[in-house]
Amino acid sequence: MLKIGANSGIEMHRWLTDLFPMNRSITGQGVRETLNYLKNILPDLNIISVASGEKVFDWNIPEEWVINEAWIKDLEGNVVVDFSKSNLHVVNYSTAIDEKLSFSELSKHLYFIKEQPSLIPYVTSYYKKHWGFCIEYERFKKLDKNQTYHAYIDAEHIYGELNFAELVIKGKSDKEMLISSYVCHPSMANNELSGPVVLTQLAKMLSDKDNYYTYRLILVPETIGAITYLSKNLPTLKMKTIGGFVLTCIGDEGGYSYLPSRAGNSMIDKVVRFYSNRTSKNIKQYSWLDRGSDERQFCAPGVDLPVCSLMRTKYGEYPEYHTSGDDLSFVTPAGLYGGLEFVVDVLNIVETNFTPIVNQLCEPQLGKRNLYPNLSIKENRNLNARLMLDILSISDGTKDIVDISIDLKEDYYTVRDLVTILERNKLIRRV
Amino acid sequence: MLKIGANSGIEMHRWLTDLFPMNRSITGQGVRETLNYLKNILPDLNIISVASGEKVFDWNIPEEWVINEAWIKDLEGNVVVDFSKSNLHVVNYSTAIDEKLSFSELSKHLYFIKEQPSLIPYVTSYYKKHWGFCIEYERFKKLDKNQTYHAYIDAEHIYGELNFAELVIKGKSDKEMLISSYVCHPSMANNELSGPVVLTQLAKMLSDKDNYYTYRLILVPETIGAITYLSKNLPTLKMKTIGGFVLTCIGDEGGYSYLPSRAGNSMIDKVVRFYSNRTSKNIKQYSWLDRGSDERQFCAPGVDLPVCSLMRTKYGEYPEYHTSGDDLSFVTPAGLYGGLEFVVDVLNIVETNFTPIVNQLCEPQLGKRNLYPNLSIKENRNLNARLMLDILSISDGTKDIVDISIDLKEDYYTVRDLVTILERNKLIRRV
Amino acid sequence: MLKIGANSGIEMHRWLTDLFPMNRSITGQGVRETLNYLKNILPDLNIISVASGEKVFDWNIPEEWVINEAWIKDLEGNVVVDFSKSNLHVVNYSTAIDEKLSFSELSKHLYFIKEQPSLIPYVTSYYKKHWGFCIEYERFKKLDKNQTYHAYIDAEHIYGELNFAELVIKGKSDKEMLISSYVCHPSMANNELSGPVVLTQLAKMLSDKDNYYTYRLILVPETIGAITYLSKNLPTLKMKTIGGFVLTCIGDEGGYSYLPSRAGNSMIDKVVRFYSNRTSKNIKQYSWLDRGSDERQFCAPGVDLPVCSLMRTKYGEYPEYHTSGDDLSFVTPAGLYGGLEFVVDVLNIVETNFTPIVNQLCEPQLGKRNLYPNLSIKENRNLNARLMLDILSISDGTKDIVDISIDLKEDYYTVRDLVTILERNKLIRRV
Repeated sequence: MLKIGANSGIEMHRWLTDLFPMNRSITGQGVRETLNYLKNILPDLNIISVASGEKVFDWNIPEEWVINEAWIKDLEGNVVVDFSKSNLHVVNYSTAIDEKLSFSELSKHLYFIKEQPSLIPYVTSYYKKHWGFCIEYERFKKLDKNQTYHAYIDAEHIYGELNFAELVIKGKSDKEMLISSYVCHPSMANNELSGPVVLTQLAKMLSDKDNYYTYRLILVPETIGAITYLSKNLPTLKMKTIGGFVLTCIGDEGGYSYLPSRAGNSMIDKVVRFYSNRTSKNIKQYSWLDRGSDERQFCAPGVDLPVCSLMRTKYGEYPEYHTSGDDLSFVTPAGLYGGLEFVVDVLNIVETNFTPIVNQLCEPQLGKRNLYPNLSIKENRNLNARLMLDILSISDGTKDIVDISIDLKEDYYTVRDLVTILERNKLIRRV
Repeated sequence: MLKIGANSGIEMHRWLTDLFPMNRSITGQGVRETLNYLKNILPDLNIISVASGEKVFDWNIPEEWVINEAWIKDLEGNVVVDFSKSNLHVVNYSTAIDEKLSFSELSKHLYFIKEQPSLIPYVTSYYKKHWGFCIEYERFKKLDKNQTYHAYIDAEHIYGELNFAELVIKGKSDKEMLISSYVCHPSMANNELSGPVVLTQLAKMLSDKDNYYTYRLILVPETIGAITYLSKNLPTLKMKTIGGFVLTCIGDEGGYSYLPSRAGNSMIDKVVRFYSNRTSKNIKQYSWLDRGSDERQFCAPGVDLPVCSLMRTKYGEYPEYHTSGDDLSFVTPAGLYGGLEFVVDVLNIVETNFTPIVNQLCEPQLGKRNLYPNLSIKENRNLNARLMLDILSISDGTKDIVDISIDLKEDYYTVRDLVTILERNKLIRRV
Repeated sequence: MLKIGANSGIEMHRWLTDLFPMNRSITGQGVRETLNYLKNILPDLNIISVASGEKVFDWNIPEEWVINEAWIKDLEGNVVVDFSKSNLHVVNYSTAIDEKLSFSELSKHLYFIKEQPSLIPYVTSYYKKHWGFCIEYERFKKLDKNQTYHAYIDAEHIYGELNFAELVIKGKSDKEMLISSYVCHPSMANNELSGPVVLTQLAKMLSDKDNYYTYRLILVPETIGAITYLSKNLPTLKMKTIGGFVLTCIGDEGGYSYLPSRAGNSMIDKVVRFYSNRTSKNIKQYSWLDRGSDERQFCAPGVDLPVCSLMRTKYGEYPEYHTSGDDLSFVTPAGLYGGLEFVVDVLNIVETNFTPIVNQLCEPQLGKRNLYPNLSIKENRNLNARLMLDILSISDGTKDIVDISIDLKEDYYTVRDLVTILERNKLIRRV
C-alpha cells in the first residue's frame, strides 16, 4: 500500500516554488530546465528529444522559441511593461518586434481582461506567427492614448527540438498504468506545476515499493507533446495500458474533480467512481464533453486508451485560471497533499483489486480450516464467516473485488482482506 | 434536400378529388382506373397484374368484382338506396341479388351505425360470399316495417387479376427506402386516398432530384396486395431495404402519428423518434400492438422489414373513419401539405445522415486549416471550432449524425454542416 | 394440468405427524426410517447410500451417529433433562459423556435461549466433536448452582453410510425439473418436514399423470447430502436440468417466499416472478444474499444449476425457527395445502409454457379457418381474433407464452389456449 509522508505537501510546494519562474513554452530552454530539475529528484527520469519539423500524426514539431528580453517603453524611456517581471507579459511563442508605434497601433497587440483588472492573462500563439504583450487592465487604462510607444521583443524561433520525459517503474505485471502531466505552462502554479510535482512525488513513492502493475509516468508539453508521445509509442501503449490518468490542476484547496475516459466504462473509471461514492472527499464528476487536457489525445478515436483525468478544481472553473492569479499562494502544501491523497487512494484500490474465482465446486468446508464456527446455534452470527461464504458464492470469475464490494454493500478493504484469507487457504485463485 | 412546392397541397387535393368517385375494391376496374390516373402524373409508374387464383403465401388472389347497378326500391318503384349516389351503399365485394323481400328479411342485409345516424358505414366481405347494403341510420328508421322491398345488385365475380403499381427511383446507393400506400378503399378521402396522393407528390419530388438512397414506392390493395408484393419480392426487399414506412390517413388537419416497426429500433424508428423530439409538430407515438395497416405484413415474423407507419390522425381514432364522413372536406390541402412535410422532414434526415469516422489519430491541427482560432485567449470561445472538436472526439464509427446530435444536444443540421466541413477537409470519412 | 385433491393437506399433515418423532441427523437410523416411511408412499423412490469417509468435493462423508439414551440427573437421581422426551434435548451429533459435574462445569455444555424461555433450541455440532444438552431457559434457571449433576449420553460415531433418496418420473421430454428437500432435521415440523411431505404429495400427483418434463425429486441431508448428490450427478444435471427449486419451510400459514437462483434470470425465475405478479398470493421476493439452504450448492459457481427456493415463511424469519416451537401445531393442513398450491401453480405454467414460432410468412388467412369474422364492420371487435393476430405478430421464436402474456398484458391461460388453437391449425409450431 502506498503511504504518503507527512511532509509531502511541503516538499511538493518547495519544488513548485523552484520551478515557478522558469519560462516554459511548448519547446525550448524552459522545458529543459524544468525536466532537468525533476531529474535531480528522479534520477531514472528519461529525457527525450524530437527534432523540430518532424511530422507527428497531423502535426509537425514546432521550432524552439528563444526570448531574451522584452519591454514596452514610452518615448521618455519609462518602462511600461517588462518581461523580466513576469514571463506572462509576452504572448507565449511571440515573434520579435522593435518598433515605435502609436497607442492605437500598439493596442492591437495588447491583451488584458477587463473583468480581472489586476491580473495578467496567459495568451499563446503557437501555430500562427504573431507578436503581443499581456498586461493588467489597470495598467492598460493608464496608457496615454496620444503617446507613441516603443515595443521591443528580442525573440527568435530556431531549429531545435521538443523535449519530454518518461519514467517506467517495473512492477510484477507487464500491464501498465499510464500517468501523465504537462510542462509547457510558464509561471502559473495550479495549471500547470501542480501536476508535475504531484506526479514526481508519486513517482518517488512508487519507486520505493514493489508494485503489482508497471507504472509509466510521462511529462510532456500539452497537446503537441502528448501527440508526439503517442506517435512514438502507440502500439506499446495499446498493448500494455490497463488504465491511467492525466494529473492537472491538482494543488488548490477546492473540491476534487474526475473527468472520465471517452469510453467511460474502463477499469479506472469504475475504480474512481467506486471510490467517489465512498470517500468523504467531495468529488465532482464531469463528462467527456467537458474535456480539455491530454485525455483529448489519449482517448481520441483509434487511440482509445483507458485514461481519465484527476483534478482538484477543474481548469476553467476557477477565476485565477490562465492568469497571473494562479500563483504560489493559490496552490498550497495542503492542497497538493490532498491531491496526492486522492491519487494514492485510487491507486491503492487499483493495485489490490483482482478478480477471484472459486477453486472447488459447491461450498468448501470452512469449519475444518477454522474459518467457520463448528457449533450451529440459531443466534450464532459470525459476520466474517457469513461474508466469506457470500464472497465464495459470487466469485465466479466475472467480478473483481470492487464489484464484489458493491454487490455485498461492504467496505473494499474488508472484502479484500477476506479474499486474501480465502486465497491463502487456496479456496479461490486469481482469474 | 427535398423542398415542397407552395401549391403542393392544392395539387394533391385536386388529384384526390378526381380519384374520389372511382369504385375501388381489392381487385377490379376501380383499382386500375386509380393506378392509370396516377401513371399520368408519374409516367414511370409500373402497373403489374397477378392472375386470380394464384397462391400467395397463405392466401389466393381473389376474383375481380364487377358491379354495374344496385338499388333498393319499394314496390311502388320509389328508390330507397342507390349505389350510383355512393359506392359505399353496397357491401364491398357483395354478391348479386334480385329479390323482393319483407322488411325483416331485408334488414338482415342492411348495415348502419346508430351512433352516427347521418353517415353511411363502409363494410366489406371479401373472403365470404355475402350480399348487403350500407345506409344511414336516419334512412333506415324511415323504412316501413310492413313493406316489401325489391333488392337489386347486378354484380359478379370473374376470373381476372389483382393490380398494383411500383416505382423505383434509382439513387446513388443500391440501398432502398420502401414507401407504401394502398388503393382498395372506395369513396373515402383520408383512408384511403390521402396516402396515394402524398406518395405521388413525394415520387414527383424524388424524381426531380439526385437522391442518396434508391426509393421503392408501391401502391397496393391493402393486406392481399402487400402479401402479393412480398411473395414476389421478398429476397430483394430483405437484401436492400434499410428503412421505410406505410403512408395512410395523412391528409386531415389533426395531429401527427407514428407507429413503430415491430423491432422498434431500426434506423427509420430512430430517425422518426429523433425528429419527433425536436419538431414543433405534435407527433403521437403508438405501439406495435396498435398496428392495423400493411406494416402487419412488412414486419411479420420472418419478413422483418424495417417499416413503420407515418400518419396524421391514426385510422380508428377519428369518428369519420370508415364512413361517408371521411370525405373531400375532411381532408384539406393544408392537411395534405402538413402530412407531406412530416414525410419530407423525416426523409431529409434519412438522406443526409451517415456515420463519420476520423481519418487520423489524435486531434487534427484545425488551426492550419483555418478551422480554429490560432490565438489562445482565456475568454476566446469559438463555438463551431469547439463543436468540430467534439464531433471529431466521438466520431469513432459507431455513431451516425443523428446519434452525434443527440450526444452533443445540438441541432441536426448544425452538426451535419460541420461534419460536411470536416469531410471536405478530409478529417473524417464515411463508414 | 396438475390438480390438488381436497384432502391433500390433511394427508400431508398425517405423514408429517408420523415422521415427527424420528431422530434425524445428517446420517444414521433416523434418516433411513424417514426415507423408508416415504418409500411406502412412493414405491419407486430409490434409496441410495454412500460409505462414511468417502470424499465428496471439499468434504468427507461423516460417520453415522448412534444415540441410545441421554439424560441429566441430580445426585438424588431426579431427572432434569431426558432425551426420550425430545430429541432436541441433545446437541445433534453429540459425543458420549458419563460424568458428575459441578453446575458451572455442566453449564458450559448447556444451550438455551433467554428470549424464548419455554423453547428448546436446536443445536448441531457435525464437524467438531463436542457434547451438549439443549434446554428451555425456564428449566435452566431452576437448576441449583451449588449442585453436582450427572450428565449421561450413550452415543457413538460409527463407520456407516450417508443416505438419500431419488425419484425420477419420466416425461415426454428428457429435459428435467429438479426438485429437492432435506431430511436431516429432528423433531421440527416446518423446518424440516414440510418440504419432504409437500415433495412427496407432488411426486404422487406427477406419477399419476403424463408430464411434458421429466421430474427428478431428491431428498437429501442438507448441505452434505446436496454436495454428495452433486458430486455423483453433476454432468447429468448440467446437461438436463432446465429449472428447479428447493422446497423448505412450506407448511406454515404465513405468506409465501421466493429466493431466486444465483443467476436470477433463468426460466424458473421468470415463471415464478410472472406468477408472483399475477396471483392473489402475497409472495415476498428475497435476494441471493438471503440464501440459506441447498440452493447454496445447486447455484455455486461452476455448478450453476437454475434452481430457486419456494417457501411459505422463510427460514430465520419466524420466531419458532430452529426451536421446539416449530411443532405439529405450527404447521397445519391448510398451510401445507397452500404451499403445495404455490408449487403446483408454478409447475402448471412450466409444463404448459413453450416458445411458438409462426409457420408462414405474413399474416395467415384466419377467415378461411373460421378464426376471424369474414364481414369487416367498423364496430366489429372480435377480441379473440385480434388476440390471435397479436400472438402471431410477435411469435418470432424469441418469446415463450409467458413473455407473450407479459407483452400483451393478457392472462396466461387465455394466451395459452389461443396458442393451442393456432398450433392445432398448424399456424404456429414449437421452437
